[in-house]
Amino acid sequence: ALVKEYTDAGTYEVRGSIAGTGTTTWTTNEFAGFWYDLDDNEGSEELAIPVSGTTVAEETMFYNTTIVQTSYEGDFGGEAGTNADGDNITFPIIGLFAEEYVSLDDEDAGELVKLLLDTDDKYTLRTGSALELAGGYELTAKQIDVEGDKVWMELSKDGEFIEDEVIDVTDGEATWDYDVDVGDQSDVIVFRCLITDVFQGQVDSLAVVEGLWLLDYEDIMEIESSDEFGELEVDSVTDTISMFNSGTITLSRDKEITLAEGFMLKTADDSTLRYYPFVERTIGGTVAEEEEEE
Amino acid sequence: ALVKEYTDAGTYEVRGSIAGTGTTTWTTNEFAGFWYDLDDNEGSEELAIPVSGTTVAEETMFYNTTIVQTSYEGDFGGEAGTNADGDNITFPIIGLFAEEYVSLDDEDAGELVKLLLDTDDKYTLRTGSALELAGGYELTAKQIDVEGDKVWMELSKDGEFIEDEVIDVTDGEATWDYDVDVGDQSDVIVFRCLITDVFQGQVDSLAVVEGLWLLDYEDIMEIESSDEFGELEVDSVTDTISMFNSGTITLSRDKEITLAEGFMLKTADDSTLRYYPFVERTIGGTVAEEEEEE
Repeated sequence: ALVKEYTDAGTYEVRGSIAGTGTTTWTTNEFAGFWYDLDDNEGSEELAIPVSGTTVAEETMFYNTTIVQTSYEGDFGGEAGTNADGDNITFPIIGLFAEEYVSLDDEDAGELVKLLLDTDDKYTLRTGSALELAGGYELTAKQIDVEGDKVWMELSKDGEFIEDEVIDVTDGEATWDYDVDVGDQSDVIVFRCLITDVFQGQVDSLAVVEGLWLLDYEDIMEIESSDEFGELEVDSVTDTISMFNSGTITLSRDKEITLAEGFMLKTADDSTLRYYPFVERTIGGTVAEEEEEE
Repeated sequence: ALVKEYTDAGTYEVRGSIAGTGTTTWTTNEFAGFWYDLDDNEGSEELAIPVSGTTVAEETMFYNTTIVQTSYEGDFGGEAGTNADGDNITFPIIGLFAEEYVSLDDEDAGELVKLLLDTDDKYTLRTGSALELAGGYELTAKQIDVEGDKVWMELSKDGEFIEDEVIDVTDGEATWDYDVDVGDQSDVIVFRCLITDVFQGQVDSLAVVEGLWLLDYEDIMEIESSDEFGELEVDSVTDTISMFNSGTITLSRDKEITLAEGFMLKTADDSTLRYYPFVERTIGGTVAEEEEEE
């Protein structure tokens, strides 16, 4: 029999602090849904809403987000393979509607891609086995030369080859950077991998990866002045994206008001105006493989 | 072939405002993970942490939560079937580690049960069809007498009968209350159902439900002085549950410190102390039925 199973995705909300009339401003401290890096105390987003009665007048609400140069989780080397030259120790991150994006340019947020992975978790790869990254990407240790301190790594997506590299760890750890032309930019690093060791296990040759960083570089979000995201219109794009509300917004009783996709305001079912911003997220949710009739 | 599929549950975190040394207090406005009712502007939880250096001295941190009489989502009638007598228009809710519980006693939070359902969503039931509630409970309209303005309702759990009732809506909407002895309390209302209409559809007789409220009354959490929840010890239980840290807590760098199950502090990977509280939640996650070998 044909068997198809859906597992419902889970949707959850993260809200910000509670507001009423007057002007209220939320940054990372007041809105737990905004992107925030605790280790470096970094955030990029700000929302300000001025309410008169129950009205947010046209072009008075603003949402701003600014590129932040943030450090990688992994301890990647510079272009020369060491940290000494100071290159490539940060990357330009920007929160947009509480999601993490990377700007293709350090000072112009007009082209963004999603950050898929940024981790210093330790993985031990056996020869031939694939490590699933995110977004369909996989990393495979094709061959591991323990005596020569080398590992041949391959990056693929949905089973298709993208790039490979022989990485030499004779001098200790080594960084593999993969760069491509993306959007208007040339030679953008879109994948970084830190290999810290190769060694002989009891049965297999093994390679240790302790840093991975990956962009969803085939899906570019372009942002320019006058673009509209729901109720929000882009005012300017520099290293900061500034948006305002293109029309009047009425904070009616007991409503969920969409500012942009997944980015909303919820008002109380009360004669006194009370509301908070929230973001909606979905996690999980899979379709099990169809099984053919036997 | 035997086929067993696991779908990974999704885990997400909701954090509070960011803190450092000194004393910081979080209530619903500073901690989006705490239980909060926007419509009635109600919350019950408070966390205060005094930090000296990186140390939270023994018995200096407190977590308090107080019973709140909150209104039902549904417009249930009182015992006499109307709202005029003012009975049963609120119930005693209490957040505990950011989860919603109901106290079995209005003024003593020593016995708590989980709130499974509180909704004024509208459901139309056909004769014989079961409405799945939560926790395995189901509501079935066994028979609908349109001419007599009556509906025979049955509450069951995991397919087993619990209680039934013939509800008369001749005078408009009617409330069905189911009460049982729970823990130390007699005649506790554990299920409420508001039936607003019965009518003849084109094919089926139909009943409209516009209020449902259900407690997980077979699973009682008892709380008394000296009970320990992780790092937290109960100091007193009245209409307020007061807890303090039973031992010294050290806010070491780059750690997740569990205060109680699902209730944690995360510290920054930085020489400057910076931390926030967060709660961990799981949604989704199922095991598909095993299929027998054919």
